[in-house]
Amino acid sequence: MKRIVTFGEVMMRLSPPGHAKFSQATSLDLAYGGGEANVAISLAYLGMDAVHITRFPDNLIGKAATQFLRHHWVDTSRILYGGEVIGKYFLEKGAVHRSSRVVYEREYSSFALAEPSMFDWDAIFEGADWFHWTGITPAISGGAAQCCREAIQVARSKGIRVSSDINSRKNLWKYGKRQQEVMPELIAGCDIIIAGQRDICEIFGFETTGNKDEEFIAAASQLTAVCPEVMKIFDKEREMLSASHNRIQGKVWNRKRFIQANKLDVTHIVDRVGTGDAYAAGVIYGLLHYQSDEEALAFATAACALKHTVEGDANIVSLEDVLELMTGNTSGKINR
Amino acid sequence: MKRIVTFGEVMMRLSPPGHAKFSQATSLDLAYGGGEANVAISLAYLGMDAVHITRFPDNLIGKAATQFLRHHWVDTSRILYGGEVIGKYFLEKGAVHRSSRVVYEREYSSFALAEPSMFDWDAIFEGADWFHWTGITPAISGGAAQCCREAIQVARSKGIRVSSDINSRKNLWKYGKRQQEVMPELIAGCDIIIAGQRDICEIFGFETTGNKDEEFIAAASQLTAVCPEVMKIFDKEREMLSASHNRIQGKVWNRKRFIQANKLDVTHIVDRVGTGDAYAAGVIYGLLHYQSDEEALAFATAACALKHTVEGDANIVSLEDVLELMTGNTSGKINR
Amino acid sequence: MKRIVTFGEVMMRLSPPGHAKFSQATSLDLAYGGGEANVAISLAYLGMDAVHITRFPDNLIGKAATQFLRHHWVDTSRILYGGEVIGKYFLEKGAVHRSSRVVYEREYSSFALAEPSMFDWDAIFEGADWFHWTGITPAISGGAAQCCREAIQVARSKGIRVSSDINSRKNLWKYGKRQQEVMPELIAGCDIIIAGQRDICEIFGFETTGNKDEEFIAAASQLTAVCPEVMKIFDKEREMLSASHNRIQGKVWNRKRFIQANKLDVTHIVDRVGTGDAYAAGVIYGLLHYQSDEEALAFATAACALKHTVEGDANIVSLEDVLELMTGNTSGKINR
Amino acid sequence: MKRIVTFGEVMMRLSPPGHAKFSQATSLDLAYGGGEANVAISLAYLGMDAVHITRFPDNLIGKAATQFLRHHWVDTSRILYGGEVIGKYFLEKGAVHRSSRVVYEREYSSFALAEPSMFDWDAIFEGADWFHWTGITPAISGGAAQCCREAIQVARSKGIRVSSDINSRKNLWKYGKRQQEVMPELIAGCDIIIAGQRDICEIFGFETTGNKDEEFIAAASQLTAVCPEVMKIFDKEREMLSASHNRIQGKVWNRKRFIQANKLDVTHIVDRVGTGDAYAAGVIYGLLHYQSDEEALAFATAACALKHTVEGDANIVSLEDVLELMTGNTSGKINR
Amino acid sequence: MKRIVTFGEVMMRLSPPGHAKFSQATSLDLAYGGGEANVAISLAYLGMDAVHITRFPDNLIGKAATQFLRHHWVDTSRILYGGEVIGKYFLEKGAVHRSSRVVYEREYSSFALAEPSMFDWDAIFEGADWFHWTGITPAISGGAAQCCREAIQVARSKGIRVSSDINSRKNLWKYGKRQQEVMPELIAGCDIIIAGQRDICEIFGFETTGNKDEEFIAAASQLTAVCPEVMKIFDKEREMLSASHNRIQGKVWNRKRFIQANKLDVTHIVDRVGTGDAYAAGVIYGLLHYQSDEEALAFATAACALKHTVEGDANIVSLEDVLELMTGNTSGKINR
Amino acid sequence: MKRIVTFGEVMMRLSPPGHAKFSQATSLDLAYGGGEANVAISLAYLGMDAVHITRFPDNLIGKAATQFLRHHWVDTSRILYGGEVIGKYFLEKGAVHRSSRVVYEREYSSFALAEPSMFDWDAIFEGADWFHWTGITPAISGGAAQCCREAIQVARSKGIRVSSDINSRKNLWKYGKRQQEVMPELIAGCDIIIAGQRDICEIFGFETTGNKDEEFIAAASQLTAVCPEVMKIFDKEREMLSASHNRIQGKVWNRKRFIQANKLDVTHIVDRVGTGDAYAAGVIYGLLHYQSDEEALAFATAACALKHTVEGDANIVSLEDVLELMTGNTSGKINR
Repeated sequence: MKRIVTFGEVMMRLSPPGHAKFSQATSLDLAYGGGEANVAISLAYLGMDAVHITRFPDNLIGKAATQFLRHHWVDTSRILYGGEVIGKYFLEKGAVHRSSRVVYEREYSSFALAEPSMFDWDAIFEGADWFHWTGITPAISGGAAQCCREAIQVARSKGIRVSSDINSRKNLWKYGKRQQEVMPELIAGCDIIIAGQRDICEIFGFETTGNKDEEFIAAASQLTAVCPEVMKIFDKEREMLSASHNRIQGKVWNRKRFIQANKLDVTHIVDRVGTGDAYAAGVIYGLLHYQSDEEALAFATAACALKHTVEGDANIVSLEDVLELMTGNTSGKINR
Repeated sequence: MKRIVTFGEVMMRLSPPGHAKFSQATSLDLAYGGGEANVAISLAYLGMDAVHITRFPDNLIGKAATQFLRHHWVDTSRILYGGEVIGKYFLEKGAVHRSSRVVYEREYSSFALAEPSMFDWDAIFEGADWFHWTGITPAISGGAAQCCREAIQVARSKGIRVSSDINSRKNLWKYGKRQQEVMPELIAGCDIIIAGQRDICEIFGFETTGNKDEEFIAAASQLTAVCPEVMKIFDKEREMLSASHNRIQGKVWNRKRFIQANKLDVTHIVDRVGTGDAYAAGVIYGLLHYQSDEEALAFATAACALKHTVEGDANIVSLEDVLELMTGNTSGKINR
Repeated sequence: MKRIVTFGEVMMRLSPPGHAKFSQATSLDLAYGGGEANVAISLAYLGMDAVHITRFPDNLIGKAATQFLRHHWVDTSRILYGGEVIGKYFLEKGAVHRSSRVVYEREYSSFALAEPSMFDWDAIFEGADWFHWTGITPAISGGAAQCCREAIQVARSKGIRVSSDINSRKNLWKYGKRQQEVMPELIAGCDIIIAGQRDICEIFGFETTGNKDEEFIAAASQLTAVCPEVMKIFDKEREMLSASHNRIQGKVWNRKRFIQANKLDVTHIVDRVGTGDAYAAGVIYGLLHYQSDEEALAFATAACALKHTVEGDANIVSLEDVLELMTGNTSGKINR
Repeated sequence: MKRIVTFGEVMMRLSPPGHAKFSQATSLDLAYGGGEANVAISLAYLGMDAVHITRFPDNLIGKAATQFLRHHWVDTSRILYGGEVIGKYFLEKGAVHRSSRVVYEREYSSFALAEPSMFDWDAIFEGADWFHWTGITPAISGGAAQCCREAIQVARSKGIRVSSDINSRKNLWKYGKRQQEVMPELIAGCDIIIAGQRDICEIFGFETTGNKDEEFIAAASQLTAVCPEVMKIFDKEREMLSASHNRIQGKVWNRKRFIQANKLDVTHIVDRVGTGDAYAAGVIYGLLHYQSDEEALAFATAACALKHTVEGDANIVSLEDVLELMTGNTSGKINR
Repeated sequence: MKRIVTFGEVMMRLSPPGHAKFSQATSLDLAYGGGEANVAISLAYLGMDAVHITRFPDNLIGKAATQFLRHHWVDTSRILYGGEVIGKYFLEKGAVHRSSRVVYEREYSSFALAEPSMFDWDAIFEGADWFHWTGITPAISGGAAQCCREAIQVARSKGIRVSSDINSRKNLWKYGKRQQEVMPELIAGCDIIIAGQRDICEIFGFETTGNKDEEFIAAASQLTAVCPEVMKIFDKEREMLSASHNRIQGKVWNRKRFIQANKLDVTHIVDRVGTGDAYAAGVIYGLLHYQSDEEALAFATAACALKHTVEGDANIVSLEDVLELMTGNTSGKINR
Repeated sequence: MKRIVTFGEVMMRLSPPGHAKFSQATSLDLAYGGGEANVAISLAYLGMDAVHITRFPDNLIGKAATQFLRHHWVDTSRILYGGEVIGKYFLEKGAVHRSSRVVYEREYSSFALAEPSMFDWDAIFEGADWFHWTGITPAISGGAAQCCREAIQVARSKGIRVSSDINSRKNLWKYGKRQQEVMPELIAGCDIIIAGQRDICEIFGFETTGNKDEEFIAAASQLTAVCPEVMKIFDKEREMLSASHNRIQGKVWNRKRFIQANKLDVTHIVDRVGTGDAYAAGVIYGLLHYQSDEEALAFATAACALKHTVEGDANIVSLEDVLELMTGNTSGKINR
């Protein structure tokens, strides 16, 4: 069983039940999630040995968050405890033309206050096969960025494959650094990148022309040109017909070819959050279990589509569920 | 900030949770609503100063109903207390081909027993810019009709604009008067009318021919002919593909031109009740904030469409939400 | 009022609320259902006198299950009590591409341990007009099969019409008999059969060619050839676009003609379980109340489509609801 | 199995969950209850054949109310349908020093509008052994009072035993009659009366002196003097230490002796409503199943005490539960 | 109607439902509260005009918090918006020997970051009769302390009575000041103080001997000696038999006499939080409405006891409830 | 950190919410528990390394049960999967005089069908310090008994301490053996026994006289006489004032002395189930961490008392909670 290490903040997720708005809520549904932990949970449900590294406050909330990850099969033995508060996000789910609203409260969290020396990466990576991080972590704080940098270095030095979901969100970068200063070096340490054309061009200052696919290929090619370790760049096109109806299509540039998966039509979205993380987990699983990028991509796209039907941040469907959809069964029949 | 006064019954709304039917329910979701109060709440969320006038029993239920309106930003300082029971309606929500069922219990309510002398309209309209009523109020009881008549007169005398959503429901008229006897005079006191061709023709006895739009224009023109104060008549076409899927299109005849908004496709309805009231609120807000009827109409149509995605009677979305949809963003993307 | 007798196991149904998965659930929604009892409940809501025959453990669970049937208007006065456990099924509801998952726990249930001598069919069928059973019952245990055989014999001897929904599920047959050994004799005792081409061919070893409809007609014709009492064979085609969107079309071969109902498009499925039972109930009601098979079929198809919008196993809509859809009103408008 | 007929209004009961107040509630727990129907349900759970007679509106609410009674084993086949609304009561549960609050809405209900000719008492009492009514029914309306009078007459003429729980609540009598004008005649038609000294003296104008028990004996003796058919008068003393802690003691005057049951200490009240009805059901069951009044009284007192631990209006405990407490086991141990 | 101004932080309160612990919760009950806002809500329910001054983030959470206060009748028109996060506290309710656990997250909140110039105290105190603050506010941050100082000064200058609940919690003072440096000056600006002997001695460095009451009298006397404006010092003794059972007794030293209220025995605690604030509100209401300190104290003690039976932070009982208990009715009977 | 291994069936626990009865429930609270797993969870919360050994069906229910144990910190890596169904129990919680009702469904469960060769005890006990089992396991089936026998033998051979909670329930022994035939040998393999006088005498056929404590000492002495390895016998006296109020007192005979802990008064019971298991966990923790039996006993008694305040089967309080109560703080104050 392959061992995957993920690293990043885990937030408390608080959302009004059903379609209610905050102005109507007298209770909030409680879960925990974060871009990287969502990947870990998803991989754990697919049968892999997933370890998540993060930092929680040492109180009953930090313990409950740890228990949530354990509940969902993640190895939590390497989590650190300290600081005062857990990061949080409030989610009000939209529908049709009504947008979902997210309010983040991540500043001063235990994770944001993490310092470089805190994590013993040598020990953490013992026996590991893969390390996954996202562009959210270096955006949170200088300490988090430095931890991430160290992790990538140690992972590379041990021959562990490294992947990153760039997930560029400009308004997260509040601690005095711009992503252009920090991200290129970290990306250069990766084998696999998940990013769109806009992400790549924003960070590296590339320019591209042509139609959508041509622009992605151009951006990806330039990225591989300046980052010799990066082998494949995955992207995902999302056609947003409404908050309740999206179409998803996985794409990859593998330095040789541009491949597209079949488009999947998600007609009745249950929970949109974390679908990108489900895609990332699908990419990792796919690359570890399939020979061809076509298959890996089809697996990732199916995993991503299924996440839209699951409540919460993480894609807790089974391998069997993904395979069924990947092989073309879109009927959603009852399995008795 | 413009001050809007609305007047009408507020009912306790009791509905089984989710898609349950009454024969399955062991608890009922509790809210309060009524055609005019829904308009007040909607305008309050859009940032206006909304005052609702009604009458509740002077007990813990009447207080809770008042608190519901306060909660949703409405000025409740002019509500009267007396009588014995609050009006009620039971709502069983349908889906796809299954109709929603509504059972009203409005007879003998505190509001139905209201008497003309009860409301001090002079004081109520101090500082007001707009008065809105609906055709439901004069249908409830002779007392309610007379209160409504007085309110219109006082409003006009103070130069306050008056709007009405005709909302003709024949089976509500049980107290011995027919709507044809009561409504024309009240309508004549309005600047803005929301009504369909059928409503208008039923009340005024007009006859029309042609296609749908031609019939509406004909009815509206005849109405403006007999009611010289009425400047604009708004209507809303609803294509009911099923209980879960409707299409909405706002329309207006402004004595000069017939204008239609873009059709909005509501593909996953959450709550159908109160969508007409959301439209009325949108009309009022639009007319107060936009120069052109085209813009006002687009605003009202967007507000109406959004209400279909909100639980409860009232359109508690924000101005930002309506503007986003009004300006063509139908993607329902996550706002982080 | 016609009196219908149904016979079969009633299971406790336990399902996570909403779209949750078992790995997320801290409570389970509780209901009771079974193929035959679902038909009884459905017929009771349509206004008929429905009696269900089954066996429950003589404890607080068996009593609660009985109360569920009573609640839904079924005559429970003939239910037997004994044995130790109630059959159960766990249901995790899917959405879009995610399949629903069902886990059955029916072995050693009070019903599975029923023995032939237990039910006094002579008394049970007093005043009855119709007897309905499904292919699930003889699959459960030898005792259940023998009870079913006796019931059919007594019913026939009293001139009561007999219908069966074949519902062939190979993996249910675990007690040492194959359905091919047991079912033909039981089917031969029926007037009305609900079954697809695959069911029929599997049980009788027939072979068919041609398109879907031709295959069904061929199978049905051969069945009527070997079972002279069987007058009509109903089938239902289900096009599964996804777990959230199906299309339904009723069909019948009445020894003379092949008739198809209009296809109904169920675009937002609430609960898929029991839709076949709703169809069976519709067939029974239709045949008892309409002259033509066309009408009976249209009624059954409408009943089936409506069940997709109702939580739980049974079709608890009213006669009025079915008639509205049967006569072409698909708008799901609000009935005030 | 003895057949008991009860007659009276059944209200929809709406209460905030747990200890919440109406000003906090966003949902309400839903049940149905009324003094006489509570007796019927309680007797049904004790294993008797209980028939409740009432009148509901002919809509989905009236059907749901009927289903509630069916669910709880009551024979509902004689219920009438008509009128517009169901009676209602809102219950806010108190705790310790905080009182429970009840708001009734019974005027103009289907039951209050019942008219004498509506119920076919001859048919209703076929095969019945006992008729039970309460003083609430004649207080509701002139029609209800007349129906009650007829029922008592027909019951007596058929030799059926008649019991009444006087339950005098002055503020219920709003239709123009005083209880002193109506009740004496009805009470005179009874064999068994449940009433306190205050009830009796208020209605009959008796005067009493002495300590509590002497006053009750005096009132009861005078009552039996003027009502020769009345054989036994039961009473229940309630010591209210707080809303959460009461002490209960049953008492009876049987024309010969005054008997008191052991006092039962209810230390953690779950739901106080309907405890008097549980006592009445216990009296009826006790008199039908025990030789001595001592035993009947002990049974009734135990039934009453147990009701305090059950949510809802009715005492849905089993015979086994009552017997255990009646025979002195107050330990509330786990029955595995 | 007297107008009371309160000033302080309002936190989001998140607590597992019922007796659940955080390690079991999948949803959290949502409310808002804070020592001073709880007083405002309580006074508003008693019929007074209560204005709360605070600062919330300008997002959907800050709006929802404001709506909560409006819902509970508080005037929110003077609330400021700014900063990033709302203060929070997590509450796990104990029972019997199990303690409740509270985790605060107040640092960096919108309120903690308030600055002196932000509040326009002159405008705020227009028409006000009373100003109430607690010792928690100056403990939160230097800015909050300075705002509090200004408020007291402006209030005094306008002849408004000032009260404070000292509520000394050493571990709240984290911003570099000790309470001994800050509090004495603020206390000196008050007319009415609520504090225990320990609070007073800790802040002023007094020493006391004797039994409990003598110590309180000694501390209070010394306090009035150094603070000539302070007229009365209220205290409350709580005997904690367990988390479910407390006894409460109000006390006051009014420079002349030491008065004690009757002890109230709260035997089944529903929610212990905010009971001190209910006492403070009772003190304010009592002093404004009664001539004697004995009556004011009895009112405050009754209000405090009742709060233990109400879910949430604030004492939302009615004046009628308090009066009933204050005048000795502890029976908690049903009010129909 | 000491490593404890526990072995036994884990059941799905299904209970109506709050005080509801099964005849009222439309949903059931879901948890998992069993005498031995409850001990493991409790020890894990106290900070120990707890491993539970059991067998679950290999389906989504078995996985969810495993996740429950992982959630509560138990090491589940040695659990086996196979068989068809999970054991279950239905729990209806009592109150005051109303008993709780438990219905077990354990026959044919995956655990009951376990066979001797299935568990690799040598590997399981690697690094373990303690093995705990209960008398329920050998009662379930011959296979379970044999597994238990093997586990004890391997544990002893490795010098691991063995404890057992006898928990004698005669009606569990259904597979053809009597506990007298099976238990003595298993008990003889233990160091620590938890059992009452009745348990011991029933199994070993001893006779005792005297008062309660003398009888226990006599039984325990005779047991140690025939089982030379058994060093200490713990017992717990429970005074059941009602289902809501118990008193608990721990006792031990350590071959030399009879020691009693202070009695703890649990006045408001939240959940009575699993309190014996909490005591057993307290005994194990106490013996591993304290020098004196007095302290171990005080710890165990405090742990047991606290469990009565926690929902669910297992004692999920923290070490800090137990120590607080053990050292005499019964006030249940709020820990901020």
